[in-house]
Amino acid sequence: MVSEDQLIQRVRRRFASTRDGLMVGIGDDAAVLRPGAGKEWVVTTDAFLENVHFVRSVHPAKSVGYKALARATSDIAAMGARARYFFLTLGLPDPCTGAWLDDFLDGMARAARRFGLILAGGDTTKYPVIVASLTVLGEIDRGKAILRSGARPGDFLCVSGKLGGAELGLRLIQQKLQKYKKWPRFLKKHYYPEPRLALGEWLVARRCATSMIDTSDGLSTDLGHICQASGVGAIVWAAKIPMVRVPPELGRLRIDPLGLALNGGEDYELLFTVPKKRAKRLPRKLGGVPITVIGEITREKKVILLGPDGSSMPLQPEGWDPFRKKA
Amino acid sequence: MVSEDQLIQRVRRRFASTRDGLMVGIGDDAAVLRPGAGKEWVVTTDAFLENVHFVRSVHPAKSVGYKALARATSDIAAMGARARYFFLTLGLPDPCTGAWLDDFLDGMARAARRFGLILAGGDTTKYPVIVASLTVLGEIDRGKAILRSGARPGDFLCVSGKLGGAELGLRLIQQKLQKYKKWPRFLKKHYYPEPRLALGEWLVARRCATSMIDTSDGLSTDLGHICQASGVGAIVWAAKIPMVRVPPELGRLRIDPLGLALNGGEDYELLFTVPKKRAKRLPRKLGGVPITVIGEITREKKVILLGPDGSSMPLQPEGWDPFRKKA
Repeated sequence: MVSEDQLIQRVRRRFASTRDGLMVGIGDDAAVLRPGAGKEWVVTTDAFLENVHFVRSVHPAKSVGYKALARATSDIAAMGARARYFFLTLGLPDPCTGAWLDDFLDGMARAARRFGLILAGGDTTKYPVIVASLTVLGEIDRGKAILRSGARPGDFLCVSGKLGGAELGLRLIQQKLQKYKKWPRFLKKHYYPEPRLALGEWLVARRCATSMIDTSDGLSTDLGHICQASGVGAIVWAAKIPMVRVPPELGRLRIDPLGLALNGGEDYELLFTVPKKRAKRLPRKLGGVPITVIGEITREKKVILLGPDGSSMPLQPEGWDPFRKKA
Repeated sequence: MVSEDQLIQRVRRRFASTRDGLMVGIGDDAAVLRPGAGKEWVVTTDAFLENVHFVRSVHPAKSVGYKALARATSDIAAMGARARYFFLTLGLPDPCTGAWLDDFLDGMARAARRFGLILAGGDTTKYPVIVASLTVLGEIDRGKAILRSGARPGDFLCVSGKLGGAELGLRLIQQKLQKYKKWPRFLKKHYYPEPRLALGEWLVARRCATSMIDTSDGLSTDLGHICQASGVGAIVWAAKIPMVRVPPELGRLRIDPLGLALNGGEDYELLFTVPKKRAKRLPRKLGGVPITVIGEITREKKVILLGPDGSSMPLQPEGWDPFRKKA
């Protein structure tokens, strides 16, 4: 039987844990962090729970560790901040304190390195199901965070990457097709999402974006959040949406790529608005990630989807909500 | 069926959520906090899980909400910091999203007011069991946090309050005696613990303490943490330990008050060390909470319990460890 102290030591060994500004890290009652001059902290917390966010028999432990941290870090990217520190609270069943935990920590350590995060503290408890909660702290210059509330009529609506890939990966898993490994790209998007930290920081540095959110719940829902917070509406041009390509072999699943792109969750792309006169500063790609203008912010507080044939229809928020849908 | 947005609104309404320094609170991707001049942040995270830390059929929802926040805040007190902001991630079963949640939030809001905490963000998810994770941020003048590692040979060992009360409350509950309400004081210590924030800040302001920890796992275990971190040992004078008084009516339970005081968890008192020459600055009580010198730090790296009869024995860490004991 492993003790809590042993467990903490095992977690601790797997992560870098020193950095300028981290005065006290793991091992005391709390961490002590010294802010950089002229900086603000950006803080987010996110739960990652067995049988809601992942299934132990399906999701590799490495993916669970990676994704738990990636999801939370995506909120830091969505403010345009630089990721700095994270805290992990973890409830673990006894059978998961061996190889499963090693793999989980492997995945999380890989994510931490990629995102520039240092583990600053946490808490472990024995529990019948795996429950993780991540707190991530980022730093940003004072007053520079990009909020949901700054979109203005006339702004272009932009999105990074392609939409629907994570949902397609989930469908493959639900159809028990994940073992075939024929479509690793889509599985990767579901298992190992990539918070768009570099793009967020770029937009802050260039003062390009007036509002921003990450597409965790799906475009339709997340655009609704921007419009509500900003008191505006939007027109989305369906033909412009960068959609994931559904492989023809999956024809029998009758997957609608537009539906995936509009309502599929967990892509963790950035959805942001840019004043038209600044739109020319936007590159077509940043670090290999495409940036696409997909619509325009309107004064009228409705969200409209404009079809390729000129038809228009209201775009209802139909993304992921754990209290509305069955888990 | 309640939606996640409705739930967030219900949580949000119950807490104060504005404060100088909180630039962006609940409702965006992340909170934005502006540090005070010359300050450091003290950050802690703590899980509070159904059937490990509380039992739904036994613990009132108000207590669950209060205690979840109090436990985490006690780590802020143990650094000597001022409590500022907290974040709540919450997994809830459907039957708990009504009256149970109202009471839970009532208890947590009362704790937040008492401790001076503002809710700055969080995350809610539907879940078969109640799982909460709290992140609490405090502020402290640069370099002033009191760590576990500063105890020096010759320092007095001091503790606030009385020890063993929370464990006695737990025993009453385990014996199904909590309904009698004959011993509300002990139940209160278990249900509604009080982080010693004022004492922590007082010790920082007076530069009295060389090391500090909160007694969450029991004196024997928590003193072990101080000794290990400081590379020292300690002698504890059993006769000086401020023990909870076990009511004579409970004689049949054969409860050893010294055992409760040494190994009972969850008192959330402050255990700290003070150089002898500064000990005279210590009041006997602060804000009604007694402060007692219970021993001395030694060069020899052993923790010794000195009995009232002059006998001495090693004091083994026998406090709470969720991975060692049965939950």
